[in-house]
Amino acid sequence: MSGSTVIEVKTASKTYPFVIGPAAREELTAFLAQCGVTPETAIFIITDQNVIETDYPQELKARLESAGYTVYLAVAAAGDASKSLATAEQLYRTMLQMHIRRSDVVMAVGGGMVGDLAGFVAATYLRGIRFIQVPTTLLAHDSSIGGKVGVNLAEGKNLVGAFHQPILVLYDTSVLSTLPSREWTGGLSELIKHAVIGDPALFHDLLSQPASDYPGPERTAELVARAARVKIQIVEQDEQESGLRMLLNVGHTVGHAIEQKSDYSIHHGEAVAMGLIVEAELAVNKGWLSSSDRDLIIQALCLHGLPTGRPDQPISPILEIMNLDKKHQRQSWTFAVPFGIGDVRVVRDVSREDVIRAWEATNIWREGGVE
Amino acid sequence: MSGSTVIEVKTASKTYPFVIGPAAREELTAFLAQCGVTPETAIFIITDQNVIETDYPQELKARLESAGYTVYLAVAAAGDASKSLATAEQLYRTMLQMHIRRSDVVMAVGGGMVGDLAGFVAATYLRGIRFIQVPTTLLAHDSSIGGKVGVNLAEGKNLVGAFHQPILVLYDTSVLSTLPSREWTGGLSELIKHAVIGDPALFHDLLSQPASDYPGPERTAELVARAARVKIQIVEQDEQESGLRMLLNVGHTVGHAIEQKSDYSIHHGEAVAMGLIVEAELAVNKGWLSSSDRDLIIQALCLHGLPTGRPDQPISPILEIMNLDKKHQRQSWTFAVPFGIGDVRVVRDVSREDVIRAWEATNIWREGGVE
Repeated sequence: MSGSTVIEVKTASKTYPFVIGPAAREELTAFLAQCGVTPETAIFIITDQNVIETDYPQELKARLESAGYTVYLAVAAAGDASKSLATAEQLYRTMLQMHIRRSDVVMAVGGGMVGDLAGFVAATYLRGIRFIQVPTTLLAHDSSIGGKVGVNLAEGKNLVGAFHQPILVLYDTSVLSTLPSREWTGGLSELIKHAVIGDPALFHDLLSQPASDYPGPERTAELVARAARVKIQIVEQDEQESGLRMLLNVGHTVGHAIEQKSDYSIHHGEAVAMGLIVEAELAVNKGWLSSSDRDLIIQALCLHGLPTGRPDQPISPILEIMNLDKKHQRQSWTFAVPFGIGDVRVVRDVSREDVIRAWEATNIWREGGVE
Repeated sequence: MSGSTVIEVKTASKTYPFVIGPAAREELTAFLAQCGVTPETAIFIITDQNVIETDYPQELKARLESAGYTVYLAVAAAGDASKSLATAEQLYRTMLQMHIRRSDVVMAVGGGMVGDLAGFVAATYLRGIRFIQVPTTLLAHDSSIGGKVGVNLAEGKNLVGAFHQPILVLYDTSVLSTLPSREWTGGLSELIKHAVIGDPALFHDLLSQPASDYPGPERTAELVARAARVKIQIVEQDEQESGLRMLLNVGHTVGHAIEQKSDYSIHHGEAVAMGLIVEAELAVNKGWLSSSDRDLIIQALCLHGLPTGRPDQPISPILEIMNLDKKHQRQSWTFAVPFGIGDVRVVRDVSREDVIRAWEATNIWREGGVE
């Protein structure tokens, strides 16, 4: 199996391969066999309308069928509105009609929305069946690792879900060549986040040789593999988010609230960039981060076409949403904040006032630049 | 802590106490403290309309509040129709409004429906929070052990769910004094099933001294503790139903289908009794069970006022429902069947014809007796 990098992900509940390469699709059936998925297993592919237009799910289906697998293909509407209990219920019922059994497999072919939704369906259908992730976006390098799956409620994102590890992640980076530029850019935000958390060399590579446009399948595979290793190392040590895993939330505590308040007109990656800047500002105010490191973070985001400020809006609705954050305790707020490049820490004594002060001190971002 | 029997349940994922006694409610706060649930934790009680009329949930709420806990009480409509994704969604949203956090606890106070629903909500709310079972029916001695939680779809029962172990089961058998007689009788069916699986002495005790009416909280606690031990020993060895746990399905493969086909006018315990008889007949036909042991099983059910035959209806819709059973493989059907009293085995080579033959040979049961 040449061409792909294989990283073994060892969590407490399961060990599985994360396979990434410029032609990983050609190794799909070989890796399935290695994971014990034989042609007697039915494979239920879940994808969405956007992805189906690339013909990638159909190509994978044809590959699997010619290897003898029985394959079904379900297509959800594109967009986060499909990440719902209602769509999950439709999928359960289709799976029952297709006689999908406990020994069969769900395969998510798509971005984070598809992976989260399909993973939740796999985690709960007949009390849980096996699950494979085939990401098609740059952002999904993040969401496909770690087993967090779920759906949204009107009150917020990912409020219902489970931890359900895949048995295989297969990431063919050549599919990213057709990614719309806003999707590519959004995914860079998580890549930069992972560099800030645990790979300063990757961070400086991105500064000296930005990947603001798709740099081809080989370099993409290399960058994603490095970012993925940061996340994998953390998830291996803390599968259920009891401690270390909170580091991955850097940029997200504020970012999620911004994303939700915008009704998702600000995309996830853009919101994480904004969150990262506000949280870096907070860290500078608290004396945890040097202002030069904060400026390097802003520079990295800027070089990759990401927002370098926060939205022009009052903070109170943002604070209200943040108050529902899953990781907060009743009495104080928990944040992951940068203390340096390659040094993110979890702090539990952040007050509302700290957040307000950082928000006010952050530049305002409008389409095209800061004011 | 006098008066209660405490059985430690040790599963791969968690160890927790199963507490049963005639006045177990008096030990609730002591056991909560022992399980690490301190008064900073909010407790979200889920119950139903039937149970709320007994005032037991309100009494528990008052006990908890006087010990300093913040307690919320949510009441679902009684009946299996509440075991749905729609009710789960209402509960998630109520919990968000009450600011229930990841560190808080769901407490199910009720029978199997409440336990399954509340457990599913706990398993999936914010990707899973802690969960306590306070059973109020005899049948719930079965459903409260083992961590199987879930909701129904129109296509069948428990088709969506998870494995989510409670941190505590607290079973006060004095609440069973008010149980309607049909509910008591239904619960005896699972008690007899557990005796058939793994406690021949319990089986013979029930034959010589039937518990057809509620025999008071002490004897109830003793009987339930013995039946519970059978289930606990199996669940400890096979948390996720990969093998041994299938033994617990005896009576259920046919029973579930009967229950569902009747639109639940035949209750679970009654349907399990019917399923047990058809499966015993099948075992006799296959040469696995002696006809005298089959007759003992029928006698035990008869002495406890349970059905001793199958419903008067054609088998084809029953077979259709059975075909969806979670534990079947694609090619053959899997059954747990009795080979003797205290000896149930899993067999994987049961054909449709075997089931049809057993069905035809079983007496027909109508309200009041067999024909």
